[in-house]
Amino acid sequence: MTTDPALDAVAARAAAAARPFAATEPRARAAALVAVADALDASAAELIAIAMRETGLTEARLTGEVRRTSNQLRLFAEAIVDGAYLDARIDEADPEYVIGPRPDVRRVLEPVGPVLNFAASNFPFAFSVAGGDSAAALAAGCPLIVKAHSGHPGLSRRTGEIVAAALAGAGMPDGAFQLVAGQQAGVALLQDDRIRAGAFTGSTHVGRLLADLAASRPRPIPFYGELGSVNPVYATAGAVAGEPELLQGFVASVSGSAGQLCTKPGFLFVPSGADLGAVGEAASAVAEHRLLNPGIGRAFEERRGAVLGAPGVAVLSEGVVRTDDDGQRYATPTVVEVDLATLLANRDELLEESFGPLSIVVRYDDARELPALQRELFPGNLTSTLHASEAELASGELAELVDALAETSGRVLFGGWPTGVSVTSAMQHGGPYPATTTDATSVGTAAIARFLRGVAYQGAPQALLPEALRDDNPWGVPQRRSAAGRSAGWGSLTGAH
Amino acid sequence: MTTDPALDAVAARAAAAARPFAATEPRARAAALVAVADALDASAAELIAIAMRETGLTEARLTGEVRRTSNQLRLFAEAIVDGAYLDARIDEADPEYVIGPRPDVRRVLEPVGPVLNFAASNFPFAFSVAGGDSAAALAAGCPLIVKAHSGHPGLSRRTGEIVAAALAGAGMPDGAFQLVAGQQAGVALLQDDRIRAGAFTGSTHVGRLLADLAASRPRPIPFYGELGSVNPVYATAGAVAGEPELLQGFVASVSGSAGQLCTKPGFLFVPSGADLGAVGEAASAVAEHRLLNPGIGRAFEERRGAVLGAPGVAVLSEGVVRTDDDGQRYATPTVVEVDLATLLANRDELLEESFGPLSIVVRYDDARELPALQRELFPGNLTSTLHASEAELASGELAELVDALAETSGRVLFGGWPTGVSVTSAMQHGGPYPATTTDATSVGTAAIARFLRGVAYQGAPQALLPEALRDDNPWGVPQRRSAAGRSAGWGSLTGAH
Repeated sequence: MTTDPALDAVAARAAAAARPFAATEPRARAAALVAVADALDASAAELIAIAMRETGLTEARLTGEVRRTSNQLRLFAEAIVDGAYLDARIDEADPEYVIGPRPDVRRVLEPVGPVLNFAASNFPFAFSVAGGDSAAALAAGCPLIVKAHSGHPGLSRRTGEIVAAALAGAGMPDGAFQLVAGQQAGVALLQDDRIRAGAFTGSTHVGRLLADLAASRPRPIPFYGELGSVNPVYATAGAVAGEPELLQGFVASVSGSAGQLCTKPGFLFVPSGADLGAVGEAASAVAEHRLLNPGIGRAFEERRGAVLGAPGVAVLSEGVVRTDDDGQRYATPTVVEVDLATLLANRDELLEESFGPLSIVVRYDDARELPALQRELFPGNLTSTLHASEAELASGELAELVDALAETSGRVLFGGWPTGVSVTSAMQHGGPYPATTTDATSVGTAAIARFLRGVAYQGAPQALLPEALRDDNPWGVPQRRSAAGRSAGWGSLTGAH
Repeated sequence: MTTDPALDAVAARAAAAARPFAATEPRARAAALVAVADALDASAAELIAIAMRETGLTEARLTGEVRRTSNQLRLFAEAIVDGAYLDARIDEADPEYVIGPRPDVRRVLEPVGPVLNFAASNFPFAFSVAGGDSAAALAAGCPLIVKAHSGHPGLSRRTGEIVAAALAGAGMPDGAFQLVAGQQAGVALLQDDRIRAGAFTGSTHVGRLLADLAASRPRPIPFYGELGSVNPVYATAGAVAGEPELLQGFVASVSGSAGQLCTKPGFLFVPSGADLGAVGEAASAVAEHRLLNPGIGRAFEERRGAVLGAPGVAVLSEGVVRTDDDGQRYATPTVVEVDLATLLANRDELLEESFGPLSIVVRYDDARELPALQRELFPGNLTSTLHASEAELASGELAELVDALAETSGRVLFGGWPTGVSVTSAMQHGGPYPATTTDATSVGTAAIARFLRGVAYQGAPQALLPEALRDDNPWGVPQRRSAAGRSAGWGSLTGAH
């Protein structure tokens, strides 16, 4: 429990909201999410102006991000409105059940309770106050506390006002949404017994600290952190020969939003003989871009220095980092190349994620070594990408590499670039540690599962069942019903299609 | 990584099995689960004889447990055979997608990799070598290592032989199942980077130690522990008046399997005026039952002494604990009563779980206090149970208590007793900490979700997609398809039914 009265009031208000918010019909929460989306769109110009000032991101990028964020809310509205996400299951009482007489048992997913979401620096809309984790928690019916990121305080405040007003206007209970600021507030609330789950997008260092706090509470809670990922890209000989825009696409993906994306490709593997001249050309055409804030700028400058100073590193595009009078840094892309032996000999300097416009091209001699390399060097990634020719893809020779990518990544791309994550029902944005603290996704509709828990009701009278489990099904949700008398045939069914 | 060569070989064998086992068709794994079930049933007499000797449980109980265990395997076979558990999602490419052009993205649930399952003392079949956690991991396609419980070593060995032979006979890959023994082996493997998830059924003390180890690994893994639960039961005035067998049912639930069940009712709340004479009568008719092993017997004897010695405790049935020459203990039920003030004044002595045939009856004056009491005293339970008359249930006066039970429990029973968990698709055996380390269930088909992770494939050629995601759908699994051109209507759908 926190000793700060203001934070205690925040936790108490969230806890008090848990039951009334959980009781709202999915259709009502869906309408509330749409109301938030509409309110964000209506204030987009005002919000984007604040965000440009606070983050240095471009108007085009932020315009797209608002669109993504409001439509992400609408997608979650779509995902919950029919109640399928409740996974309502009804096992009818069965005196002949093969394991012994079965009572009437019904199970539904219920919200876990208050969720604390630590907003990210690099997506002031899409992974922030009204972003994906927030949308998922609200969609699940969990009171939400957002810990604002210090990199965009004004935007967080204004977005918070808009979200709170829209939820209230849509009839959601008091306390369904709250905003706090400051690292201490986040740490104190994460340890408060009334908080039942954490969500986070940020660095491996901070994320792991918070995950450890969540795990060491007297009552531990799940902590869904998206931490670090270097998102390796593998280009075959066929891709290098057959994709004239390969290196331009790579540089664009590395330098978009000044490389401050969790899915930025940190490594591009190419055959040793590949001509890399296009990298420098493409990089030199990229305009200087501000880094998000002085702290991130400083960290990037240090990281870039370490990479450039590592033995055996050759420069494809040196790039620049310039500091203005306010301590803000502005960068153009840095791209270096190494051979595989150099990478392996300098793991400490080279393998760590560089948050900013920097990437490392690695020359390899034998494509057959790549699967083992991926497993050893990159065991946990948000994404991995394979560029290959159609003939190579059809030959079967890449199956082992694809297996390795799938084992170590949440999303495997065939062509294209990992930046620009789409928000869809099939998206997976989360992979083996350290990409995420668990394998759960933080983007796409599957993200809602993180904030739900199963509750079974045995022998309950209809009037005391949750709506989703009642025989008269007032919410009209899909119900999976196991009829009595069916268990005797188990085992024989495994031959059926 | 472990430094013991034998354990290193176990982890290496499990890791090597991960890919071939993951590649098996669900139908083939279902057939393998049925083969294990058939083999267990065929050896039931031999296994039960060993189990009786090693655990002191009765033939009737063990016969039922084998039936439960083999049919649990068959239920998981049923649950995976059609591939619905894979949750295959296909988002068609959509140039008009409202968030921006959408690539072809497909997501499927894949096995997390090697799972380490710590078997329980009290269910030598159903929560042990071939028990529920094992069935769920194998059903998911995860190589399984079972750490045998020291309380039934011979049974574990023999069961392990049967499981291994049946899996091999059904064509499952080498290393899909392994058995290890000894606390050190379990601890070392839990910290091995090749193990990707843990499962556990046992005490809060040991479970928390292991959970902390899992969370503090360089690469943390999820640890699904079922720890402790006191499973409160609330009887209203109407239940006391209208259920003549109420107290007999309570004593039977407390004393079955000598109370060594995770769902044993540790507390029964009754109105202050209730006549409790039947408790002593029923308890005195219960025959002496051996406790599982000397360690559990000793712990029970100490715990019983602490409860009987607490101030204000009145004895309804004192029971006995007798020790034989081998250090095995035999017990009859101990049931005590306290008033609410006594319980609140002696929390340290009384609130802890007593693993064995002991329960505490609590007299209350005002039923309106019960919801707050449940939330304060019992924040995390596998089960909570309400006994009330039909009139009381229909009146609405119990809604607040039902809410409190659902918030703090995985399963809420209306009448009946929490022991004798059915294994069904709607079962939830897992609740807020310390009932389980997460809210996940370890019984019923929903338990498989613990051992699966989402992987998305973007722009993949058909030949390199997992079978479940291919357009020609060779496994015939349900595929949820999001067609192109549908996102423009989002938000308007929230008004639709």
